Amino acid sequence: MSANSERYVVGVDYGTLSGRAVVVRVSDGAELGAAVHEYSHRVIEDALPDSGVRLGPDWALQSPQDWVDVLRHAVPKALAAAQVPAAQVIGIGTDFTACTILPATADGTPLSEILPDRPHAWPKLWKHHAAQPHADRINALAEERGESWLPRYGGKISSEWAFAKGLQVLEEDPDVYARADRWIEAADWIIWRLSGVETRNVCTAGYKAIYQDGGYPSEDFLAALNPAFAGFTGKLGQELAPLGGLAGRLTAEAAEWTGLPEGIAVAVGNVDAHVTAAAADAVRPGQMVAIMGTSTCHVMNSDRLAEVPGMCGVVRDGIVPGLWGYEAGQSAVGDIFGWFVDTSVPASYAEKAAERGLSIHDLLTELAAAQKVGQHGLVALDWQGGNRSVLVDHNLSGVIVGQTLATRPEDVYRALIEATAFGARVIVETFEAAGVPVEEFVVAGGLLKNAFLMQVYADVLRRPLSVIGSDQGPALGSAIHAAVAAGAYSDIAEAAAAMGKREAGVYTPDPDRADAYDRLYAEYRRLHDHFADGALLHRLRAIRNEASA
Amino acid sequence: MSANSERYVVGVDYGTLSGRAVVVRVSDGAELGAAVHEYSHRVIEDALPDSGVRLGPDWALQSPQDWVDVLRHAVPKALAAAQVPAAQVIGIGTDFTACTILPATADGTPLSEILPDRPHAWPKLWKHHAAQPHADRINALAEERGESWLPRYGGKISSEWAFAKGLQVLEEDPDVYARADRWIEAADWIIWRLSGVETRNVCTAGYKAIYQDGGYPSEDFLAALNPAFAGFTGKLGQELAPLGGLAGRLTAEAAEWTGLPEGIAVAVGNVDAHVTAAAADAVRPGQMVAIMGTSTCHVMNSDRLAEVPGMCGVVRDGIVPGLWGYEAGQSAVGDIFGWFVDTSVPASYAEKAAERGLSIHDLLTELAAAQKVGQHGLVALDWQGGNRSVLVDHNLSGVIVGQTLATRPEDVYRALIEATAFGARVIVETFEAAGVPVEEFVVAGGLLKNAFLMQVYADVLRRPLSVIGSDQGPALGSAIHAAVAAGAYSDIAEAAAAMGKREAGVYTPDPDRADAYDRLYAEYRRLHDHFADGALLHRLRAIRNEASA
Repeated sequence: MSANSERYVVGVDYGTLSGRAVVVRVSDGAELGAAVHEYSHRVIEDALPDSGVRLGPDWALQSPQDWVDVLRHAVPKALAAAQVPAAQVIGIGTDFTACTILPATADGTPLSEILPDRPHAWPKLWKHHAAQPHADRINALAEERGESWLPRYGGKISSEWAFAKGLQVLEEDPDVYARADRWIEAADWIIWRLSGVETRNVCTAGYKAIYQDGGYPSEDFLAALNPAFAGFTGKLGQELAPLGGLAGRLTAEAAEWTGLPEGIAVAVGNVDAHVTAAAADAVRPGQMVAIMGTSTCHVMNSDRLAEVPGMCGVVRDGIVPGLWGYEAGQSAVGDIFGWFVDTSVPASYAEKAAERGLSIHDLLTELAAAQKVGQHGLVALDWQGGNRSVLVDHNLSGVIVGQTLATRPEDVYRALIEATAFGARVIVETFEAAGVPVEEFVVAGGLLKNAFLMQVYADVLRRPLSVIGSDQGPALGSAIHAAVAAGAYSDIAEAAAAMGKREAGVYTPDPDRADAYDRLYAEYRRLHDHFADGALLHRLRAIRNEASA
Repeated sequence: MSANSERYVVGVDYGTLSGRAVVVRVSDGAELGAAVHEYSHRVIEDALPDSGVRLGPDWALQSPQDWVDVLRHAVPKALAAAQVPAAQVIGIGTDFTACTILPATADGTPLSEILPDRPHAWPKLWKHHAAQPHADRINALAEERGESWLPRYGGKISSEWAFAKGLQVLEEDPDVYARADRWIEAADWIIWRLSGVETRNVCTAGYKAIYQDGGYPSEDFLAALNPAFAGFTGKLGQELAPLGGLAGRLTAEAAEWTGLPEGIAVAVGNVDAHVTAAAADAVRPGQMVAIMGTSTCHVMNSDRLAEVPGMCGVVRDGIVPGLWGYEAGQSAVGDIFGWFVDTSVPASYAEKAAERGLSIHDLLTELAAAQKVGQHGLVALDWQGGNRSVLVDHNLSGVIVGQTLATRPEDVYRALIEATAFGARVIVETFEAAGVPVEEFVVAGGLLKNAFLMQVYADVLRRPLSVIGSDQGPALGSAIHAAVAAGAYSDIAEAAAAMGKREAGVYTPDPDRADAYDRLYAEYRRLHDHFADGALLHRLRAIRNEASA
């Protein structure tokens, strides 16, 4: 195919602080140009823009304007960087953080544009954690009633998800709740803006909105939570759109924003983690893709349904049509290392790193890598951001055990890296114990750049690591979905095989280190199981919250 | 009494890194001049001087030459600073770290002067911890045989003490052991040098050499440890000298070193912690003196004998004649805060402290003090240096629980301060539960300068704190003993009342904070009891030691 007849797709990845657009060649997945747009409102955590209305603890909001700005700025820039004719772009796909969700009117107008001084009118970012009490009630009632959907979410739904956040709005601002004709994922809202068509994708409906076996939780259940909550599902989508499907065609308005041709394919919305499986060409059963960044998300297809304790969810067609898509996660991974470097590394290390032109992360990694397994005498629990899988408890917190007066920063840094690897091993072992084999562990995400960390994971997991061949996996995955939606490939698997990038066996376990880690992992499991009930950690948090009130 | 007829005494305090001399007025305890001499060999931890022979892990030695140099340099300087006529000095007293012990010939020559390239010929400093396996065997055998002395040491003797260190010498260098006609505390060795008379003080014999009820452990017991160890007690003193007693008269040689008059009284040797009770005028039953510095030592007299679990020892006449002297301890206190500041506080804090002309300790204290009790959400175990009382286990290590991604350095700093206060409360409660009431808590030592820390202790202990009126407590205490030995007072209590300094009720507990601390203390106790058996911490240490080998 000559350059003149090459076709291209655009993938747009909406993250927590910015959006990224990438222009990709349909024939082979080559990434030809990319651009990032930082959200001007970043994460809204303390007070609302303009009005300055204060937010409570654990709140996290975003501005829809920032999302549209990504289309207006990042897409044209990426196109210019790629130096391809816009006319040869045949489709656009997007992925979003989730559950990032907003109340909107029947025509899709965000309520935050109508009621800008009302906190609950704004989109709640995935990491808005103020609906924990609501999630607790949902879980308690579901367990009491034996709701069939509960085991599909590892036995607990999250405070981050659609129902907990919705119930919080109802009970804290019933007026906003009443005026919200729609309660819609940002993943679907942006597609509505691009195509003019309201769709609801299978992925967020299944993983975040408890859609299982053809329906949402019953009216009866919702009414038992709060009589006024009974009709909640009327605000959600009733017909779901399949992943890789065509949501609609690019509107004139969106064509003007992006510089793309009006009428090209707009793919059904998707979630950043799940869409990455396609980018890594890892959508076959047993391929677990770990997207490792500030947190880690694990996604995997399987041909069998099992109820894995503490997984985030299992959803039919949730990653690709025709298979069961599993999701698990670790609440904080890179965030833990970042926190440690920001708060716990002395000036002498900063100076030494600066002298050598290294980051503090690099210096600590170098020092940690020079140690033998177990030499630091430490074991830590990686719960500084709570524990998503397999304990599903945001109110857990970190534990570090074994410090002596000789313990140095690199010791703790290494112990924290190991703790996250142990956390990943707990997840893998839990899947396998539930009858869902993990046949390949594929890594994507920003932590790939730390080769020592990757080797620790290979040693701790006792298995080779495959590695994605792109550093913009979600955006590439969205582009792959766009190619499918545009009809360039028959399905996601075929498109992923042509356009996705994965290298197998990049890191392989060292048997001696793996044996040594088995002993440390046994200690991690003991600590994990001791603190898992949260008794002590919850009491500490309660004391903290009372003292801070 | 006119200035011309005033009498003076000199107290010399031998610490871990330096020796301090102070000149004190007999009539009222006024401290008129002081001087410090830093040991030129400091702590010998890595290799022997001159020969460079390497030492193993956990070794810690000192040089006797450094101790004599304190007499030659610090005493004349203190005398000059005090501007009193040497002729009016009537006595000298000393105190030492303990158990700091050495092998010597029958005339008192340290074996390290004869065999300078043999590690075991050198004095073992109190914090030499390489005899842990020997201590373990002594404890196991004593428990098995039900030795009556074992409960006098809280159920465990320490690897720091005379028998464990002696057994290590026997088994690792039998030739040095055989040539050591004497195995003598530095506390007694220095008195021998000053007076020409070999004495053995009640205090170190009782607390460090298992002298109880008129004798040492039996030959039979020692032979069961190792047949060659049977005659070990022949190297120790057989007649003990009482505290406050006259050991002998200053020799011509020592008079020349010190610039003091030949023939003045030399008091019986003593231990730095125990002698401080006199300096604080706190030698009555129920007055617990906590000497808080890098570690904390607790000493208290009582008129009753009890077997307190995990105390370091109870010795008849061990602090003052006629009472039972109790000792307990926390292995690391100030050392923990120092370790934290050295290893775990970022450059931004160092810069902020420097801008404001504060130390990092001061800055962290200020930030920590602004918090409410429990606001940091943390609880820690203060075992970074092991646990002396009440667990008597050097192989324990630290634990910090409850970190989130919002945890800051001042949070951990405060939690560590609180952890040491909780550790002190465990000790006080253990004494009281054993029937030994603690009626007054008196603080001495370097940590007195941190008023916030003192208030935390008052709040956590739920009792007012008394405070010593001297910042050179041990040296003042030694001077008080010198006054008694010289006959200026009839006994230690009388001398302490005249010369010692104590202010009562300097810090008083706040009821609300005390209540809040009760909740945190309950969590500390749970953690303490969970990790007390050492199972997990010992395994981590074993893994560390194997990896480091």
